[in-house]
Amino acid sequence: MNRHELVEMLRPGSRHPGARRLRQVGYVVVAAAIVDAAAATMVTGQRFAGLVAVPAAAIWCFFLVEWVLRLGLAPEIAPATTPWAARRAYALSPAGIIDALCALGPLAIVAARSAPVMSALLLFSSLKVLRSIPGVHLIARVFRNERRTLLSVVTLFALVLMISAECEYLLESRAQPAAFGSLPAALWWGVVTLTTTGYGDAIPITFPGRVVAGLVMVCGIAVLALFAGILASGFAAEIRRRDFLAAWDMVARIPFLRDLGAATIAEVARLLRPQEVSAGSVVMRRGQPGDCMFFIVSGRLEVQVEPPVTLGNGDFVGEMALITGEPRTATVTARQDSELLALDLADFRDLAGRHPELANAIEMEAAKRGGSRKLTSGPPK
Amino acid sequence: MNRHELVEMLRPGSRHPGARRLRQVGYVVVAAAIVDAAAATMVTGQRFAGLVAVPAAAIWCFFLVEWVLRLGLAPEIAPATTPWAARRAYALSPAGIIDALCALGPLAIVAARSAPVMSALLLFSSLKVLRSIPGVHLIARVFRNERRTLLSVVTLFALVLMISAECEYLLESRAQPAAFGSLPAALWWGVVTLTTTGYGDAIPITFPGRVVAGLVMVCGIAVLALFAGILASGFAAEIRRRDFLAAWDMVARIPFLRDLGAATIAEVARLLRPQEVSAGSVVMRRGQPGDCMFFIVSGRLEVQVEPPVTLGNGDFVGEMALITGEPRTATVTARQDSELLALDLADFRDLAGRHPELANAIEMEAAKRGGSRKLTSGPPK
Amino acid sequence: MNRHELVEMLRPGSRHPGARRLRQVGYVVVAAAIVDAAAATMVTGQRFAGLVAVPAAAIWCFFLVEWVLRLGLAPEIAPATTPWAARRAYALSPAGIIDALCALGPLAIVAARSAPVMSALLLFSSLKVLRSIPGVHLIARVFRNERRTLLSVVTLFALVLMISAECEYLLESRAQPAAFGSLPAALWWGVVTLTTTGYGDAIPITFPGRVVAGLVMVCGIAVLALFAGILASGFAAEIRRRDFLAAWDMVARIPFLRDLGAATIAEVARLLRPQEVSAGSVVMRRGQPGDCMFFIVSGRLEVQVEPPVTLGNGDFVGEMALITGEPRTATVTARQDSELLALDLADFRDLAGRHPELANAIEMEAAKRGGSRKLTSGPPK
Amino acid sequence: MNRHELVEMLRPGSRHPGARRLRQVGYVVVAAAIVDAAAATMVTGQRFAGLVAVPAAAIWCFFLVEWVLRLGLAPEIAPATTPWAARRAYALSPAGIIDALCALGPLAIVAARSAPVMSALLLFSSLKVLRSIPGVHLIARVFRNERRTLLSVVTLFALVLMISAECEYLLESRAQPAAFGSLPAALWWGVVTLTTTGYGDAIPITFPGRVVAGLVMVCGIAVLALFAGILASGFAAEIRRRDFLAAWDMVARIPFLRDLGAATIAEVARLLRPQEVSAGSVVMRRGQPGDCMFFIVSGRLEVQVEPPVTLGNGDFVGEMALITGEPRTATVTARQDSELLALDLADFRDLAGRHPELANAIEMEAAKRGGSRKLTSGPPK
Repeated sequence: MNRHELVEMLRPGSRHPGARRLRQVGYVVVAAAIVDAAAATMVTGQRFAGLVAVPAAAIWCFFLVEWVLRLGLAPEIAPATTPWAARRAYALSPAGIIDALCALGPLAIVAARSAPVMSALLLFSSLKVLRSIPGVHLIARVFRNERRTLLSVVTLFALVLMISAECEYLLESRAQPAAFGSLPAALWWGVVTLTTTGYGDAIPITFPGRVVAGLVMVCGIAVLALFAGILASGFAAEIRRRDFLAAWDMVARIPFLRDLGAATIAEVARLLRPQEVSAGSVVMRRGQPGDCMFFIVSGRLEVQVEPPVTLGNGDFVGEMALITGEPRTATVTARQDSELLALDLADFRDLAGRHPELANAIEMEAAKRGGSRKLTSGPPK
Repeated sequence: MNRHELVEMLRPGSRHPGARRLRQVGYVVVAAAIVDAAAATMVTGQRFAGLVAVPAAAIWCFFLVEWVLRLGLAPEIAPATTPWAARRAYALSPAGIIDALCALGPLAIVAARSAPVMSALLLFSSLKVLRSIPGVHLIARVFRNERRTLLSVVTLFALVLMISAECEYLLESRAQPAAFGSLPAALWWGVVTLTTTGYGDAIPITFPGRVVAGLVMVCGIAVLALFAGILASGFAAEIRRRDFLAAWDMVARIPFLRDLGAATIAEVARLLRPQEVSAGSVVMRRGQPGDCMFFIVSGRLEVQVEPPVTLGNGDFVGEMALITGEPRTATVTARQDSELLALDLADFRDLAGRHPELANAIEMEAAKRGGSRKLTSGPPK
Repeated sequence: MNRHELVEMLRPGSRHPGARRLRQVGYVVVAAAIVDAAAATMVTGQRFAGLVAVPAAAIWCFFLVEWVLRLGLAPEIAPATTPWAARRAYALSPAGIIDALCALGPLAIVAARSAPVMSALLLFSSLKVLRSIPGVHLIARVFRNERRTLLSVVTLFALVLMISAECEYLLESRAQPAAFGSLPAALWWGVVTLTTTGYGDAIPITFPGRVVAGLVMVCGIAVLALFAGILASGFAAEIRRRDFLAAWDMVARIPFLRDLGAATIAEVARLLRPQEVSAGSVVMRRGQPGDCMFFIVSGRLEVQVEPPVTLGNGDFVGEMALITGEPRTATVTARQDSELLALDLADFRDLAGRHPELANAIEMEAAKRGGSRKLTSGPPK
Repeated sequence: MNRHELVEMLRPGSRHPGARRLRQVGYVVVAAAIVDAAAATMVTGQRFAGLVAVPAAAIWCFFLVEWVLRLGLAPEIAPATTPWAARRAYALSPAGIIDALCALGPLAIVAARSAPVMSALLLFSSLKVLRSIPGVHLIARVFRNERRTLLSVVTLFALVLMISAECEYLLESRAQPAAFGSLPAALWWGVVTLTTTGYGDAIPITFPGRVVAGLVMVCGIAVLALFAGILASGFAAEIRRRDFLAAWDMVARIPFLRDLGAATIAEVARLLRPQEVSAGSVVMRRGQPGDCMFFIVSGRLEVQVEPPVTLGNGDFVGEMALITGEPRTATVTARQDSELLALDLADFRDLAGRHPELANAIEMEAAKRGGSRKLTSGPPK
């Protein structure tokens, strides 16, 4: 493993096989850290050293090595004007700070040996996975886009919470001084009720108190519905946007589509759904009903006929199912990790209605290629 | 009942009357299995044999016969290259494995006679209904389309869960060693609270513990709203897609619409709503306000005037209500199981605005047919 | 009050002032019935007759009179081929059956004098309000449109419920025979947990039992999100449809819009929002920012300038705020119950972009009418 | 601070720096009032005066001064026909009534010195923040638009609640007279269960009672889903509307866009997202990937190159990232509070497809400006 490969493995978003393996090792180590954090709170006495401390030390070594490598190779992973600028940029980024705390935090224990602190530090490393979860950015964008409206809902929630707590304090504090004897105590009841959690440790017993509580519960449902409503409309817009951008970037790499003219490309990109398949997985299976065709953006697919046919960048496959409506006539598997663009049956027909020339081109290409080999649904190279 | 009919009855998605009856029998047997599973956990002693074991044996016989038939007739139900390939395909499909376990599982009891095992095996057969529920595929597709975003929400849920459990463990373990004395115990509190279930068996009592718990409850609402938001936007897209595809397939079978040209067909198919009516049911009732017209894709409707008029494939009915706005002038019932395409009043008007020639054609056809028989809203054959 | 007025008052959906008053009286009587139903379960002994029985008798008299009137006048309220056909149609409609049970049900008490039965019969009359709630039909339509998908969710819910109950029965029945000793008992735990209600009367205590319970809670959130997602997309479509239809019907009554041609009408109808104002209410207030204009479909508005100007069918008002962006220059109130079509600022601009001739017509009309009276935002008759 | 500045600070929605500071002071005072309200319910005895009464007096002085100022300056803050009309308008507006109650309410305590009353009056002032939360109007509009449908859901909720409470009363009152002995008691159980709060203080124990309770819980989920569904579709429409209007108002102030013709402006306004940045904040950072460009509506941005370039009204910045896809080539910060219109990468490509002339104009302008200074992504003045 040379220095270049190591850089490639550590680069975020890398598609290098080593990078994928490293990510998987990372998940395993984080899982081990979580288990060890649980163990630290349960095991005491003599077995603590062997069952908790030794694994923890091993985990921290891993994090320390990772952090040192990322810091040292930062100028190559994410180049900047000077090597030290790149290192400072990494060290001060959110990911870099989490890495640093995971790697250096344990030093704090040397001073104060404490099982709870140890458990907390181990658990903290679970934040490392945030970086490589694909949809986190999407969720973050939706929250950022709708932050004003969400802030209003949170403010309304707080207002309803305080007013209902004050009401219950006024109505119930004499009957139940323990549960409603002060405003903070009533606020605890309020938050438990308004979120419809309902522990049952504080329950109004007077008639007006129960009427107010009933209203608070209904408000709780409304707040939840408001949240859901805002996020639902935000997600619809944001998912459309993400798919459009990903498809647009890919369309530019397919000669067949690239030549369509900007207006049609924008329309086609709105219909294509980007998809990634890993090496060895089955893209379509012989005999299954087919409801989409695929354009190959990068990678390599194999049509399993005799002899097997290999398809590469710019080819398309599966179009027969859309044209004739028959089941897939051959199994197609990915020989490498590949990026595909899926065109759905519904969208193909919709598109064919509005741009008949595109559908004709696909059909002609398919007919020309098909020729002697009617059984396969993919064209030869 | 000959061999061909039997094959037709067992074919999934078959519209044969026998297939429908068989499905209904299947539902009844599964319901009996569920009741018997409950009985197996309640009845003990001498009555066990009569009330539990005998019905269970009958149910298992039914499942065994069904599985043997499906396996034996697999080459005719779903043909493949060789009969044995068809049988292997069925036996290894999810449906085949469930059928096999329902049929063969009971053998395990012969060795270990145990009421709980018996109850579990009986209940397992409820999975058989999944196959014939129409919307399951739709739900599965939505989950598959949005799997990355949903996975992110689940990961966020897990992170919030672990961090809040760790916090409560640090804050509450001294005050309540029983409920918060270890990380797993705190995790149990966390999942009960974050899902807003709130059993009330573990409740924070310290002030900082309650503040953290309040935040966790609000996060629980947000997670639920995230889930709902993602699924809502996914469903909207997927339901549109399903209806478009079903309508497209049907439009091609109606001469009147087939001749419209691809662009208009795509537009019309997006407006038509496929609908199935079973024999004997009422499609429209005299005197009711009418808000849609129907194209008949397959089957046979009867307009109840004197003398009754029968309509078949390619006819349409109910268009007068859309044109004149008057209530239905005759009752129409289905004489066979029929497939219809409904065109809603709102969509008809919208369409008439953009494609006046289509609306004119419908109006002219209606006027021509109506002629001497103004009272009926359906044309004669 | 003559016979014709009585018929008009009883006709469903009537806009007669008497009909409105009758509906309000009906709400009051139903509210009294609900209070009396509560009283019937609380008051015993000597005061029962005075506080419960007498009001109940009065309420039932009202229902009886109403039912007899509706039955007797059915031929005039909803004409049919023969008077008896109209009466039978009413008597067998859902509304008629509810009315009959409210009117005749009490006879059952004569035989069995029982407070609980009395309370149930009184409460039953609350179903009468369903008829006059405007959005009930909309909700019913959404449920009917999405019934297949909703049925699938309910089936999935039932499957998850049964499988999780069986798991908990197997895992917990030894540790807690009281709460998990049989499948029905475990089902009770399951439904309380899967809906995230969480009473806390049955709580798993074994480690595997708690892991399964945690998964069940997360499934509960997912089921709720599925429901919400399906209904959200259904509502979006159905609300659009309802407003389009209502606006279309109204557009046909406004000369200014009627002459636009079918294509433009369909587009305009999609933008107009129908609105009803009752006599005396304020449509717009002087000095407020204006974000919509109104077309008057029926009724009568008064612009409060010196001297006051009255506007009637086909007039429009408030257009200056859309054209100039200035606040309202006069207060406008409704002198009668009126139907309006609101055209929103955002939609007006959107429309003006696509149909400049329409915006020009409105501006010219406004300029022509404005002339000497720049201050008011409404045209003189 | 002269009189004019004071008026500007008090004007709602003012962008004056003093107005912003005053709003922040207002938030701090309200927060102090909430803390003091909590203290009033917890502190008793001698420390009450110092810890509760004195801060309360200070808070009320602030509110009194604010109210007197707002009332006195009302003719200048919101001019009307006469000064007294302006004062009356403010005094009777919802905001004015809240201000008055916050300022004058304490007088009520002079008569009745009571800690609970004091706490309630202090907490009441939290309503003051409603005025300046940006999304409250949006939420209010959604509720107003959907009020009929929401009312139906509330009515359905009430019907289900009453019928289920009656059922449980009939089924459980004998077994559990304490929890289900009257209809009001059963209603309390009903609201706790139907909102899925589930305190656990009243739990059905009979078999039919539990079956009904299970159905009620599922209905609770459905009601919540209905709420969420209605609000989700309402929000989607309303957020689109708000952004369209804000963008439209801003487009008119950008010469480059103003000249496009009404049809294109309406289309562009639907794509632009209004955004406000406060002085000193970073608009884009060198090296970051760029996914939108900005039009400057008002304010002043600084491109941090050597020498720094200042951009003002009508300029645009960040377009290179959209055209070339490269990361930002310079950091841009806001030197004043500025209003921007963001054009997203996805929308830019979509727009470029339909209006190539617009994209060409932006590219030409960028090329012309870029010229000698390829590194910056913003044009010189």
